[in-house]
Amino acid sequence: MGTSTVFFTNIPLKFSQIPRSIRPPIRPNQRLPLDFSDKFQHGFGGIRFFKAKPRRKLCTEAVLSEIPNQKQYPKIGAQSTGSVPYSHLIQVVETAAKTGAEVVMDAVNKPRNITYKGLTDLVTETDKMSEAAILEVVKKNFEDHLILGEEGGIIGDTSSEYLWCIDPLDGTTNFAHGYPSFAVSVGVLFRGNPAAAAVVEFVGGPFCWNTRIFSATSGGGAFCNGQRFQVSQTNQVEQSLLVTGFGYEHDDAWATNINLFKEFTDVSRGVRRLGAAAVDMCHVALGIAEAYWEYRLKPWDMAAGALIVEEAGGAVTRMDGGKFCVFDRSILVSNGVLHEKLLERIGPATEKLKSKGIDFSLWYKPENYRTDL
Amino acid sequence: MGTSTVFFTNIPLKFSQIPRSIRPPIRPNQRLPLDFSDKFQHGFGGIRFFKAKPRRKLCTEAVLSEIPNQKQYPKIGAQSTGSVPYSHLIQVVETAAKTGAEVVMDAVNKPRNITYKGLTDLVTETDKMSEAAILEVVKKNFEDHLILGEEGGIIGDTSSEYLWCIDPLDGTTNFAHGYPSFAVSVGVLFRGNPAAAAVVEFVGGPFCWNTRIFSATSGGGAFCNGQRFQVSQTNQVEQSLLVTGFGYEHDDAWATNINLFKEFTDVSRGVRRLGAAAVDMCHVALGIAEAYWEYRLKPWDMAAGALIVEEAGGAVTRMDGGKFCVFDRSILVSNGVLHEKLLERIGPATEKLKSKGIDFSLWYKPENYRTDL
Repeated sequence: MGTSTVFFTNIPLKFSQIPRSIRPPIRPNQRLPLDFSDKFQHGFGGIRFFKAKPRRKLCTEAVLSEIPNQKQYPKIGAQSTGSVPYSHLIQVVETAAKTGAEVVMDAVNKPRNITYKGLTDLVTETDKMSEAAILEVVKKNFEDHLILGEEGGIIGDTSSEYLWCIDPLDGTTNFAHGYPSFAVSVGVLFRGNPAAAAVVEFVGGPFCWNTRIFSATSGGGAFCNGQRFQVSQTNQVEQSLLVTGFGYEHDDAWATNINLFKEFTDVSRGVRRLGAAAVDMCHVALGIAEAYWEYRLKPWDMAAGALIVEEAGGAVTRMDGGKFCVFDRSILVSNGVLHEKLLERIGPATEKLKSKGIDFSLWYKPENYRTDL
Repeated sequence: MGTSTVFFTNIPLKFSQIPRSIRPPIRPNQRLPLDFSDKFQHGFGGIRFFKAKPRRKLCTEAVLSEIPNQKQYPKIGAQSTGSVPYSHLIQVVETAAKTGAEVVMDAVNKPRNITYKGLTDLVTETDKMSEAAILEVVKKNFEDHLILGEEGGIIGDTSSEYLWCIDPLDGTTNFAHGYPSFAVSVGVLFRGNPAAAAVVEFVGGPFCWNTRIFSATSGGGAFCNGQRFQVSQTNQVEQSLLVTGFGYEHDDAWATNINLFKEFTDVSRGVRRLGAAAVDMCHVALGIAEAYWEYRLKPWDMAAGALIVEEAGGAVTRMDGGKFCVFDRSILVSNGVLHEKLLERIGPATEKLKSKGIDFSLWYKPENYRTDL
C-alpha cells in the first residue's frame, strides 16, 4: 500500500512583489504621485509605522519605471461637493455607515433563541432596520437629498444634486451563514459622481467578530480606521491575487465570468470569491488583492467601494474598459498598474457579450437627477 | 441616457435554514445524537449562551426526521491514542500550534522596512521558522514520534505509531498578500488515523488582525477558543454555502474542479474560494459553511481539519465517496446531512478522472509506518 518514492514539494512562491499593505510606507529617495500630509501613517497588524515627512514619495524604483507608460483611466470621483463642504459630507457618511453597522452588530451578537422562521425574518429585518437607521442619519442632516436604498428604493427630492447610494447589508448570504465578510456601504454622489464614501466591514466570524471602517472623499485619499492606505503596486498578472463575484441571475454574463474565473485562476496566484462586493473593492484598495470585477452590480453595491479604490490610487472602469459610472452594469477595479493587462482578457469577453445583444445600458438613473456624466 | 422603468430587486433570500453557529444551541424538547457535558457552551460574536443541562439534545424537528435515513460514513478518527493519554496529546498539539502561530504573528506585525527580496525571504523564512518552533515542541515532548512537515519532510522514528502532520503556514499566498485567512495546522495520527488536532486561524487582516484556535480529539468533540461547537444542519444543496480550492498543478483534476465550482455555484447559495485548506475545513466544522472539497491536498493540509470536522458532527470521505485517510489525494468534508447529495455530482466527476487513469493512489505513507488503515 505504501509508496517508496517521496517528493516533498514546497508551495511555489514565485512572487517578486509584495502588496503595499505589508510594505514600508516610506523609504528614502522615493519619488511619486501623492503629496502626503504630515499626518500620514500606515499600519499593518496594529503596528503604526513612523510618520512620513511631507512630500516624501511612495514607490519603488521598479514601479517608477513603469509609471510613464501606465495608461490613465478617467477619474470617477466628483469634482466638487457643491454647497456641502467635504468635511461635513464625510462626517455624515461615516456616521450613517456606523449607525447601520450598529444595527448589524446587534443582530450578529443576538442570542438565537427563536425559530427558523424567526431567523429568516431576522436577516430581512436586519437589512431593513439597518437601512432605516442610515436613512434617519441622512435625512436629519440633508432633508432635501435624493436617496437610493437597496431596500427602500428611491426617495427624496429628484431635483437634488446629491444622491445617496445605500447598501445596508452587503453580502447578505455571508451574514445569514455567519461567514465573514459582510458590510454596510454608504456612498454619496454629487451630480452623478461619488463624492464621499464609507464601508464598515465585519471581519473574523464566530468567536472573534470585529469591524474596520474604510472611508474616502473625492481627492482626499482613502483611510482605514483613520489611517491612510494605498493599493498594491504589483504589475504582473502572475504575481497578483484577484477577486470576483457571481450574481444571482445565471445568464450569459454569469457564464462569461465563470470562464474569466477559470482563465485568471490559471494565470494568476489565485482568484478569491468572498461574496461581498463593497468588501472586495475595499480589499483591492487596501492592497491585499490586486483587482476585482463583476457584472450586474447595483449603484448601492459600487458607489462607496469604487471611490475608495480610486482614492487609494487604483483605477475604476467598466469591464469593457469604458468610463465607469455607478449606474453601469459592470465594474473592474484594480491597483491601476495592472488594469490594462486585465482588460486584455476581460475587455474582449465583455465586448462579445455586447455583440450578442446583452444589455449594458445604464441600469437605472433617477429621472430628472442632474449629473455631469 | 436615463431609463424610466425602475425595478428594485431585493436580493432573493430563499433560505429556510440558518447554520448552527447562529442558532440557539439548546431548545426545550429536542432530542438527538450527542451527549453534552454540563460544561458545554456555545458562543457567537463573543456572547456566551446559557449552559446546557446534561443530556439535553440539539436538533430541530425537521432535521430529526431526516436523520434515520442519513447515510453514515466511516469514521476517520483514531480509536485510541495508545500509551499517550488524549489529554496530554491535545495539550502538546495545541501548544505546538500556538507556538507556530506566535512566529507567524511576529511576521504579520513586523514593520516592512526591508527590500522586496527581503520580503520574499520573509515569507519563506516564516514558514520555516514556524515549522522549527512546532518541531521543537513536539520533539521535547515525544522524542520518538514520527513527524511529517511541509517544509522539512519526514523525520523521526519510522517504527513509531504516532505521525505528526504539520503545516506551519497554511494559505501561504494569502499570508504573502496579507489577505485573511491563513493558519497554522497541527494534527497527530495514531496508527494512521487522526487522534488530536489544532488549527490557529489568522482572521481580519490589516488594521484588525486576530486569531482563533480550533481543536479536537478523536471522540472528544471540537472546540473553538475553548467552546464546543457543531456543524450546520442544512440539508438542501440550494440552501448551502460551499467552499473549494484549486491547487498549483493545473491538470485534469483541476479542470474537473473548475466544472464542479461552476455547477455548485449554479445550484447552491454560493461557492466560496478562500485559499487555505485547514481554514476552510474549520469553517465547515463551525457551521458557517456546509461543505468543502479539493483534489491533491497533502497530509499536513488535511490531518487536523478533517478530524475537527468529524468531531463537530460532520462527515469526511474521499471525493469518490470512499473511506478517507490523510494520505489520499482528494477530500470532501461536509456537515454530514448534505454529504450524499454532494456526492451525487462530485462522485461521478471523480470516477471519470479515475477512468481516465488519473492517479488516485495514496500520495505518500512513510515506509514501515504501522497503521490500522
